[in-house]
Amino acid sequence: MLAANELDMQAGRASGLDDAMLDRLALNPERIDEMIEGLKQVAALPDPIGEIRDMHFVPSGIQVGKMRVPLGVIGIIYESRPNVTVEAASLCIKSGNATILRGGSEAIHSNQAIAQCIAKGLAVAGFPASAVQVVETTDRAAVGELITMPKYVDVIVPRGGKGLVERISRDAKVPVIKHLDGVCHVYVDQAADAQKAIRIADNSKTQRYAPCNAMETLLVHESQVDSVLRPLLDIYEAKHVELRGCEKTCALFAGRVKPVTADDWAAEYNAPILAIRIVSSLDEAIEHINTYGSQHTDSIVTENFTDARRFLTEVDSSSVMINASTRFADGFEYGLGAEIGISTDKLHARGPVGLLGLTSEKYVVFGDGHVRG
Amino acid sequence: MLAANELDMQAGRASGLDDAMLDRLALNPERIDEMIEGLKQVAALPDPIGEIRDMHFVPSGIQVGKMRVPLGVIGIIYESRPNVTVEAASLCIKSGNATILRGGSEAIHSNQAIAQCIAKGLAVAGFPASAVQVVETTDRAAVGELITMPKYVDVIVPRGGKGLVERISRDAKVPVIKHLDGVCHVYVDQAADAQKAIRIADNSKTQRYAPCNAMETLLVHESQVDSVLRPLLDIYEAKHVELRGCEKTCALFAGRVKPVTADDWAAEYNAPILAIRIVSSLDEAIEHINTYGSQHTDSIVTENFTDARRFLTEVDSSSVMINASTRFADGFEYGLGAEIGISTDKLHARGPVGLLGLTSEKYVVFGDGHVRG
Repeated sequence: MLAANELDMQAGRASGLDDAMLDRLALNPERIDEMIEGLKQVAALPDPIGEIRDMHFVPSGIQVGKMRVPLGVIGIIYESRPNVTVEAASLCIKSGNATILRGGSEAIHSNQAIAQCIAKGLAVAGFPASAVQVVETTDRAAVGELITMPKYVDVIVPRGGKGLVERISRDAKVPVIKHLDGVCHVYVDQAADAQKAIRIADNSKTQRYAPCNAMETLLVHESQVDSVLRPLLDIYEAKHVELRGCEKTCALFAGRVKPVTADDWAAEYNAPILAIRIVSSLDEAIEHINTYGSQHTDSIVTENFTDARRFLTEVDSSSVMINASTRFADGFEYGLGAEIGISTDKLHARGPVGLLGLTSEKYVVFGDGHVRG
Repeated sequence: MLAANELDMQAGRASGLDDAMLDRLALNPERIDEMIEGLKQVAALPDPIGEIRDMHFVPSGIQVGKMRVPLGVIGIIYESRPNVTVEAASLCIKSGNATILRGGSEAIHSNQAIAQCIAKGLAVAGFPASAVQVVETTDRAAVGELITMPKYVDVIVPRGGKGLVERISRDAKVPVIKHLDGVCHVYVDQAADAQKAIRIADNSKTQRYAPCNAMETLLVHESQVDSVLRPLLDIYEAKHVELRGCEKTCALFAGRVKPVTADDWAAEYNAPILAIRIVSSLDEAIEHINTYGSQHTDSIVTENFTDARRFLTEVDSSSVMINASTRFADGFEYGLGAEIGISTDKLHARGPVGLLGLTSEKYVVFGDGHVRG
């Protein structure tokens, strides 16, 4: 596996991949140990398949319930990290699905070496070799084929940059489990506890900048400017976060905050940049989030029950939080045990997607010779 | 409403619609009463929206669960029956969704009259008028627009003939909840109780011929030819069901059964025609169903636990039954209270789709100032 990876690394250096790309591509004994540890964790999860639930009698006398079943064949399309090959294969095997894996062309040798290890494992377990198929060609046309075969592929999971996900969503004729943007908000309500608000707004932005669940826009009720926004600006400045604000914010903190442009409210920075808007009501905050957000994760900080309840009900996002950091929106933090990805769509799977997102339920009917009258 | 319907009926007669089409199009006081009764039933169903379930603590100290929410905007495309306008609108309102309804052009006046009644109801209830929109044009291009606006429409439900559903599935850029075919099977196992098998195979085929959950192919274990198949043929013949069989069936019942052609195993007759195959094992029956079936509804008749369990697990259909008639596969029979349609897809909704099929769940997180470490 390491020898194969070295071929990819050499080709990557020769073709001028940048350091970040090369780092994602690289395998070493520690990373292989992490892959093994990940496999053990997935193996230890409960088996989701075959569960029969809710068998109840209906007036005709038949008994009706549901049984959890695999989706079928899952196509996973991803970029340079070769560890995704192992992780995706393990999640599909655990959920009873066959999978077709298509990694980045720059990782082709690494992925083929990993595929050989998976093939050995399947043989030992007595599973069909075709249960996990790693696409052997780097030809781009293969992706086009994979995503337009609804007869053979039940769902596509693209994992990678926004460009990849957009391209696949646009062209696919097979259902896609995806998330495009993570424009997450924290709203500091009029009734917020200032210390909780400062802690949550700091953590949501600065604990890590790159993840999709990091806050991109901070909304602050006008009554909380001195109690919350002013001390927060000191914290952000100390951490070198670039601040861009609405007119009011700029007027209040002249020289410290740049004015937002038309694009900032909907921007996913994934970087030490923060947009700030002062609002005069909960309604204004909710409308802002539902207009500019990406239906990913949004949090309110408040001690007021009715404000919290309205935010929960009216914000149309895959994760809605009260008094917690947006950074918690994650399959592992939610206790799913594993994460295929995060879905900002509404059908089938919404929010962090665990093993259950790769399953479906069929109806089961028990009778004793029952017929319809 | 009746006056508007009379305009449609006149136009329908003038354009040469056949009697079956005219019957579907017609409204009269009895049918209007049925529409009202349907509305009362939907109104009496429990409200699915807002349910918060499964709020549990995870190791970080936050509390995580799910809240049931509407999908958003549902586009429903249907054919001549004007009562669908009322029924679809009521199901979408009950599930908290906005809806755009596009009925058949031959029912345009009836649908506009019904739309006016719905608008009055919305106003009385204090709902926005735009919550239910009935498309006012009969221009076919409107359908093309509706199914390619994922930004504005969250899901499309086509209700109608296979041609309509195929066309919409092929062209849609919005997720579609649909079923195309109903090629349903009954398998009479070696261990079947003969009387139950005869009753179920008779009912599955002949209780009604047109519905999608009627049996189209009967599979009989070779050991049950005399005990089950022979008496069944008498029943079918008495009911004038045309019989088409495999080679073995034709040889055994020469003159009574026509040979199947290549198309029969995958045919949805929706008519008094039945395909029959004698098989020599459960494996052969399961393979036949998974090869030629439409993943709709399939039933085994058996007294053997392990055969029943294998059929349940290995037949990949939206409803799998043991010792019951396929005719039970229906939202009302399953106790869903209402049915939007039946889905033979696996994502989101599978089998009969009730109100829950028009909803989704978002994650809800409660904290007390929690941040990620």
